Amino acid sequence: MAKDNKKLVQSITSREEDFAQWYTDVVREAELCDYSSVKGCLNYLPNGYAIWENIQADLDKRFKETGVENVYLPMLIPENLLQKEADHVEGFAPEVAWVTHGGMERLQERLCIRPTSETLFCELWSRTVQSYRDLPKVWNQWNSVLRWEKTTRPFLRSREFLWQEGHTIHATYEEAEERTLMMWKVYRDFISESLAIPFVAGRKTESEKFAGAQDTYTVEALMHDGKALQAATSHFFGNGFPDAYDIKYLDKNNELHSVYETSWGLSTRIIGAIIMVHGDDSGLVLPPRIAPKQVRVIPVAQHKEGVLDRSEELLAAIRAEGLRADIDESEKSPGWKFSEQEMLGIPVRVELGPKDIENGQAVLVRRDTREKTVVSIDDVPAVLKELLETVQQDMYDRAKAFLDSHIDEAQTMDEMKAKFTDNRGFIKAMWCGDESCEEMIKTETGGAGSRCLIEDEEPISDRCVCCGKPAKYKVFWGKAY
Amino acid sequence: MAKDNKKLVQSITSREEDFAQWYTDVVREAELCDYSSVKGCLNYLPNGYAIWENIQADLDKRFKETGVENVYLPMLIPENLLQKEADHVEGFAPEVAWVTHGGMERLQERLCIRPTSETLFCELWSRTVQSYRDLPKVWNQWNSVLRWEKTTRPFLRSREFLWQEGHTIHATYEEAEERTLMMWKVYRDFISESLAIPFVAGRKTESEKFAGAQDTYTVEALMHDGKALQAATSHFFGNGFPDAYDIKYLDKNNELHSVYETSWGLSTRIIGAIIMVHGDDSGLVLPPRIAPKQVRVIPVAQHKEGVLDRSEELLAAIRAEGLRADIDESEKSPGWKFSEQEMLGIPVRVELGPKDIENGQAVLVRRDTREKTVVSIDDVPAVLKELLETVQQDMYDRAKAFLDSHIDEAQTMDEMKAKFTDNRGFIKAMWCGDESCEEMIKTETGGAGSRCLIEDEEPISDRCVCCGKPAKYKVFWGKAY
Repeated sequence: MAKDNKKLVQSITSREEDFAQWYTDVVREAELCDYSSVKGCLNYLPNGYAIWENIQADLDKRFKETGVENVYLPMLIPENLLQKEADHVEGFAPEVAWVTHGGMERLQERLCIRPTSETLFCELWSRTVQSYRDLPKVWNQWNSVLRWEKTTRPFLRSREFLWQEGHTIHATYEEAEERTLMMWKVYRDFISESLAIPFVAGRKTESEKFAGAQDTYTVEALMHDGKALQAATSHFFGNGFPDAYDIKYLDKNNELHSVYETSWGLSTRIIGAIIMVHGDDSGLVLPPRIAPKQVRVIPVAQHKEGVLDRSEELLAAIRAEGLRADIDESEKSPGWKFSEQEMLGIPVRVELGPKDIENGQAVLVRRDTREKTVVSIDDVPAVLKELLETVQQDMYDRAKAFLDSHIDEAQTMDEMKAKFTDNRGFIKAMWCGDESCEEMIKTETGGAGSRCLIEDEEPISDRCVCCGKPAKYKVFWGKAY
Repeated sequence: MAKDNKKLVQSITSREEDFAQWYTDVVREAELCDYSSVKGCLNYLPNGYAIWENIQADLDKRFKETGVENVYLPMLIPENLLQKEADHVEGFAPEVAWVTHGGMERLQERLCIRPTSETLFCELWSRTVQSYRDLPKVWNQWNSVLRWEKTTRPFLRSREFLWQEGHTIHATYEEAEERTLMMWKVYRDFISESLAIPFVAGRKTESEKFAGAQDTYTVEALMHDGKALQAATSHFFGNGFPDAYDIKYLDKNNELHSVYETSWGLSTRIIGAIIMVHGDDSGLVLPPRIAPKQVRVIPVAQHKEGVLDRSEELLAAIRAEGLRADIDESEKSPGWKFSEQEMLGIPVRVELGPKDIENGQAVLVRRDTREKTVVSIDDVPAVLKELLETVQQDMYDRAKAFLDSHIDEAQTMDEMKAKFTDNRGFIKAMWCGDESCEEMIKTETGGAGSRCLIEDEEPISDRCVCCGKPAKYKVFWGKAY
């Protein structure tokens, strides 16, 4: 009831006025998720979870095309197992939740709820991998993990979150490295093609890589407020991790060898990126490939004879084309229905009123540009199919233009500080490789850290932007979620 | 290496000799799952998890056709929330795991890992449902739950297990009751059509229903050893549960009402049922509709020229028909490959050797009956498609004949006791409705409990089989997993 009287669009803050509040408002009004009775844990509501389901279906297909098999390992990890790899336990132990009682009994050993599952995969493989015939293992699971975060935000940081975590082991260093890079490419393809999100991508610095990894490769997207978001990562472990868990195999000559490991993940954070890259002051704007509904039919003056019947016929024809479509036959006003469709980010709406029917036409309205096209009713399904492809491509192109216009470079700290005030985004600058400079840059710029190394471009200069000593790396710097 | 020398089929116990050991052997040799480092928690391995993925895809589609929306609610439940509904907390509190520490801090209130999520759904709805416009909610989640079981067996009983739990609320008693029965039917259709498993089905007695429910409807399948397995349940809560959590809505006249609730679930136990209904002394026998691989091509004398090429062409043609197929090109002997395909329960294998190629034919061998058919190579894909349908139907028919031959009735306790010794399965007998008789029957028969009420048949007599007092119900009795 309240819902029918309030003004939907006015209920969200404008993006330019207060980006953080805009984000919160969109998540709430589009009913994507809300907080539960456990601090920092989310309820993923139907509108939000349906996006995740489409992400899962698309990405899982890409995984399987590269030979990935899905599994499910337990949510609980014994304390002694977590502690076997030193860097890893140091990275995760401070932020795990501990189970101390099962039923009425106190447990002899504490169990933590998995913050990530490298330890469990390694334990399993240490028992089951013996021969070169058992390799490689290329496994993935879709699950939830829990990290006891202090501050949380919907999708971006919550204590429990959904993700996929892939884990693989291989007989050789080269094969594991190849898999690390292959999955990094799968993520880049998925994020650009299916989510219409452009990015910069590269290797992480020592201080930013995953706890226990030898190398971490990241995909860094740029949000509309100029802050970066780590969208996916692929880690190469070498043999350090599997050696700590004593995973060895016998080769054809009966000689014992180490195995080489990778892991890679993408989480529900990516829904935050979709919102913050594409959304606008009317709400969500969803890329057609992962939108739960791609088309909504909205009858106008639906009380008039024939309007609802013709609208339903049209809906059936659109669905027959293989598009995900629904219809809003509620008693709300057309204007109200348009606002709701816009808030939900449904890529195209089809308006159909008595005059349209008289003229044998319908009006298609794009969510991203609000552009209207009048189309002969019979042509609607075919036109929609093409239009959705166009919308998908245009959304990527617009986001790419935004990203490109928010990449800059700096030769000095003064330049760097000034650019992070005026023009947020990614700044390219040289770095000596010392963590103290990395820290200093973060402090001086009010939070811009190293996002990733740039390994395929000419250096800007031969000096570190911070200390002036010889530069080793060219780096993307940026503030981040 | 060990694997190449051992005799695969001899590595499993025969079903008649020791059914429990046969089950354990099949689970291990088919590499479906194994125990993890946490007592009673399973690692679901690729062969086992792939069955679950197919179950999910099939059942989820059926759910969505009835209007179900998927969500994801947190894995943790605050202690005070669990305690709001008296019967429910009494049923679950003794078997939950408790989180007492988050990060480095002791929590002010203990959190349990969900054993089931009625409480979380009710908490969410108590905050978000206000008007008749907010109803119904027809939600489901695919997740894992944890119950601190003392004795565990792969798939059948483990501390953490995978399932789906559907939860709905409705404006009226009738609508909620209709949904309870609708989902019960969805399960029955799925279990018979897709899993080829026949069953008896009905309402549970008071003592056997879900903690907090008003009515529980169950699907009870019969395993090859004559024991029943509860394959799925659908619960009707009335308004007791939602009232305890204070979920109310205003109708069109602004009057406040209770809502009516249902929940319904199916878990990875069902994989145990698939094994124990269809499996034989050579291993798994999977119904084609949910088999991860439906067809395996096995080249014979593959070192001979053209065999591998022709086999791969055939595989491509089979896949083009939309069938899930793979090929075994390893260097093992054909006999060994046949044993492996049989162990994994792949419904049909296609044998192709030099002579077959010469004659333009291939040999199709059904896993369920071992029946061989010689088919022209070009016809293989089309013949396979039909053959898989036949296998699916025959598997159901055989299991149905087994079930029918294991249903009997009893008029007296002596008869009942004798029949549960000689001929295990379901026994129909009359019952007065007293829990003491229900208990007594269980004790006297060595464990046969009430599986479900029979409400659409004539009574056998007017006296309780146990106490001889007037009978109220006709009941299926059986020993169960």
